[in-house]
Amino acid sequence: MKLTKQSEDFPAWYQEVIHHAKLAEHSPVKGCMIMLPNGYSIWELLRDQLDVQIKAHGAKNVYFPMFIPEEYLRREKEHVEGFSPELAVVTIGGGKTLSEPLVVRPTSETIIYDAMSRWIQSHRDLPMRLNQWANVVRWELRPRLFLRTTEFLWQEGHTAHATAREAKEQVSEITSLYKRFSEEVLAIPVVTGRKSDSEKFAGAVYSESIEGLMQDGKALQMGTVHYLGTNFAKPFRVKYSSEEGPKRHVHQTSWGVSTRLIGALIMVHGDDSGLRLPPRVAPIQAVVLPIFKKGKDTSELTAKAKQIAESLDHLGVRVEIDDSTEMSPGAKFYHWERQGVPVRLELGQKELEGDTVSVALRVPIEGNKKMQISTSLLGKEIPKILNRIQEEMFAQAAASLATRHHFPTTKDEFREQIESRAGFLQVPWCGTSTCEADIKSETKATSRNLPFEPLQQPELGVCIWCGRPAQAIANFSLAY
Amino acid sequence: MKLTKQSEDFPAWYQEVIHHAKLAEHSPVKGCMIMLPNGYSIWELLRDQLDVQIKAHGAKNVYFPMFIPEEYLRREKEHVEGFSPELAVVTIGGGKTLSEPLVVRPTSETIIYDAMSRWIQSHRDLPMRLNQWANVVRWELRPRLFLRTTEFLWQEGHTAHATAREAKEQVSEITSLYKRFSEEVLAIPVVTGRKSDSEKFAGAVYSESIEGLMQDGKALQMGTVHYLGTNFAKPFRVKYSSEEGPKRHVHQTSWGVSTRLIGALIMVHGDDSGLRLPPRVAPIQAVVLPIFKKGKDTSELTAKAKQIAESLDHLGVRVEIDDSTEMSPGAKFYHWERQGVPVRLELGQKELEGDTVSVALRVPIEGNKKMQISTSLLGKEIPKILNRIQEEMFAQAAASLATRHHFPTTKDEFREQIESRAGFLQVPWCGTSTCEADIKSETKATSRNLPFEPLQQPELGVCIWCGRPAQAIANFSLAY
Repeated sequence: MKLTKQSEDFPAWYQEVIHHAKLAEHSPVKGCMIMLPNGYSIWELLRDQLDVQIKAHGAKNVYFPMFIPEEYLRREKEHVEGFSPELAVVTIGGGKTLSEPLVVRPTSETIIYDAMSRWIQSHRDLPMRLNQWANVVRWELRPRLFLRTTEFLWQEGHTAHATAREAKEQVSEITSLYKRFSEEVLAIPVVTGRKSDSEKFAGAVYSESIEGLMQDGKALQMGTVHYLGTNFAKPFRVKYSSEEGPKRHVHQTSWGVSTRLIGALIMVHGDDSGLRLPPRVAPIQAVVLPIFKKGKDTSELTAKAKQIAESLDHLGVRVEIDDSTEMSPGAKFYHWERQGVPVRLELGQKELEGDTVSVALRVPIEGNKKMQISTSLLGKEIPKILNRIQEEMFAQAAASLATRHHFPTTKDEFREQIESRAGFLQVPWCGTSTCEADIKSETKATSRNLPFEPLQQPELGVCIWCGRPAQAIANFSLAY
Repeated sequence: MKLTKQSEDFPAWYQEVIHHAKLAEHSPVKGCMIMLPNGYSIWELLRDQLDVQIKAHGAKNVYFPMFIPEEYLRREKEHVEGFSPELAVVTIGGGKTLSEPLVVRPTSETIIYDAMSRWIQSHRDLPMRLNQWANVVRWELRPRLFLRTTEFLWQEGHTAHATAREAKEQVSEITSLYKRFSEEVLAIPVVTGRKSDSEKFAGAVYSESIEGLMQDGKALQMGTVHYLGTNFAKPFRVKYSSEEGPKRHVHQTSWGVSTRLIGALIMVHGDDSGLRLPPRVAPIQAVVLPIFKKGKDTSELTAKAKQIAESLDHLGVRVEIDDSTEMSPGAKFYHWERQGVPVRLELGQKELEGDTVSVALRVPIEGNKKMQISTSLLGKEIPKILNRIQEEMFAQAAASLATRHHFPTTKDEFREQIESRAGFLQVPWCGTSTCEADIKSETKATSRNLPFEPLQQPELGVCIWCGRPAQAIANFSLAY
């Protein structure tokens, strides 16, 4: 069965890719998903690589309770207003009604900063950088696998600093770290920028984000980084004694990326044949397919396939053999294509005789979809090919992102380009919440962020929408 | 400040070790703990090593929702009876009262087997082996850090098989895997055996366990493996079509270990000077301490310390430098001892001149607590020393376990040995729940398990307690 084409029905295509690649499924618990082995191993790969970077940055991993006293959330006004509608609340514990209900964490600022207020006494305790990998819950009425689920997995970083300047630097550093991770590991180019006031985190002074552009022209917020100022430090009394003078409140940041990144991988890289995985996050980077002829002895082919797989495995390539006999070779090609495996090594009688392997690439390099490689060179060539596929996937996505930046100069143009899902509309904007609400109600578009490096830097002039003086360049688009 | 001695007050000693090594602390959320960086990195090390073994065994990692419809739990009678008193229940979601409450998973048999009923159709889908790393909640009124907390982290394996025989083999294999892991990675010898009926998992046909013996003579259940038979397969309709005949129910197993293992590490290996960590789970395996003399230039010592640390790091040793100047050398020794770091490399003026390092071992090998090693040999010697410490710690714990097996022959002897916390009492036992309840109410001891390899294999004769015919050899002791 063929997949629905992206161009015909992108949401249907997305569901089918996930279904055929067996990444995840909806669970009987409304809004929650089950991550299947293929989906979860992508998560493990990206989590482990990001974890190394977060640790290298100086953050230490911890684990906090997933239950938070309701009262904690109420201490920061915007925070509780933002999250209240999305909370899951435990009211019964150990068979008894709780005198104070517990909230299942939607994020952990409050409980972590309560602890920081005990741990931080002096300027010598700063900066403090913590990170945790955890599940969080935000009630979701219209769930979409990976993109919006009631429970999801994520990483949340929390830091405390002596000064606003240091905390703001921390924000910039993490935004850069996320961007680099997205580009180098996920092969996804992103636009970094500051969120508008209506799109910032509930409780933040300001938020920054990395935004990706999906192939249907809609944006996906892939990670956010918040400068919290002293908004939480004050109600939670996180203070330090400096060398001179009285105790001061710390300045804080928080930042996170989630299982949503897997949704981005699918929607940025997938094609009409299914998933395409960048080698660095592909659970299987190469599959070896011995191609049996009916009635012929299979032992020699199988042995050769094993030998090839073993030698690649020793080089650190994540490799699997598919020597099943239930599917035809054609069906197998099709199967592994859908799974997004970057490289397929086909081994038939002809290859056996020539001591070569036919290498089929999920992502063509310089137009080459298939090449013959001498067996003795595989160990040298396959890692190189995987690197080149990784680069090629990033280059393709970057080119696509660049061509889908638009610069409408009139309100009508803006409307039309949103309707045609043209991508990011980079426009001069007044920056007010009322104008953003107006744009949203009329076009469904929102400001994704105020990019740090706009592709064009026009005179600001007036707001594309309301005509008031523009305050910044903003990227507007439909978004997930 | 000195720690309380183990012999004076073991529970106080346990708390102090955790406090001084900064492993965890109680959170303001009753029953839940905060895992601090030092504690969490032990968890990461043991989790990653066990994960490799579980995958090598053929299980695939997945992630299921943490919310379970209450109705699911009710489908298996013993299961719901066992877990009901410990449940946390979400009754409000997204601002509304839920029509059906959701339980926060105390374990995931029900929701996973509901999915298996959709995934398993034919005998070709079997065996199915899944595993997940997750947080679970069991309401705890008397929490103890790592040992009993309302929320804890664990791994839970779930398998389905065509026959009872295969499922039972699976149980044996995992019990062996856990035992090997405990011995080789945690350096903790364990007793494997079958749980008594009153101690088995709620919903299992039978359970097996690995049981460790703490230095206070109390046992700790460190991991359990359950043969579930068709107890869950029937209510959840997990069936497969075999080659002949009608659809059959699968036979299932489940198994888990948790953050409790960190409690075991502390209580098996720690001493009056604090934590002692086996090198394989020590976040810092070696600390390099340049010892500065007052008024002298520190640059040469610091440079040498860095060079040593770098060369060990390249060899894969987890190493840190402590070149702080706030603490005296003596205070530093004391500090790192308490943290349980296996090897301390001290570098003073004398060592610098002789191009050697003083290597202090947290666990003496053949009576040697300290040795001088030429700098050029460190790369060869330190990994060897770490291996020997790992072996030595296991050997010490194994010797201690062996000497603390007792074989009382009368009820009075049994009583006395329980009162003096002698360790495991290996006795002929009738195996009935009434007898076990009677023993428990009089002595607080429970049967830990019915060991597969009793140290002595006496004639069964009669039950040590009630005098009825004995059915098995059991290990009784006080337990956490």
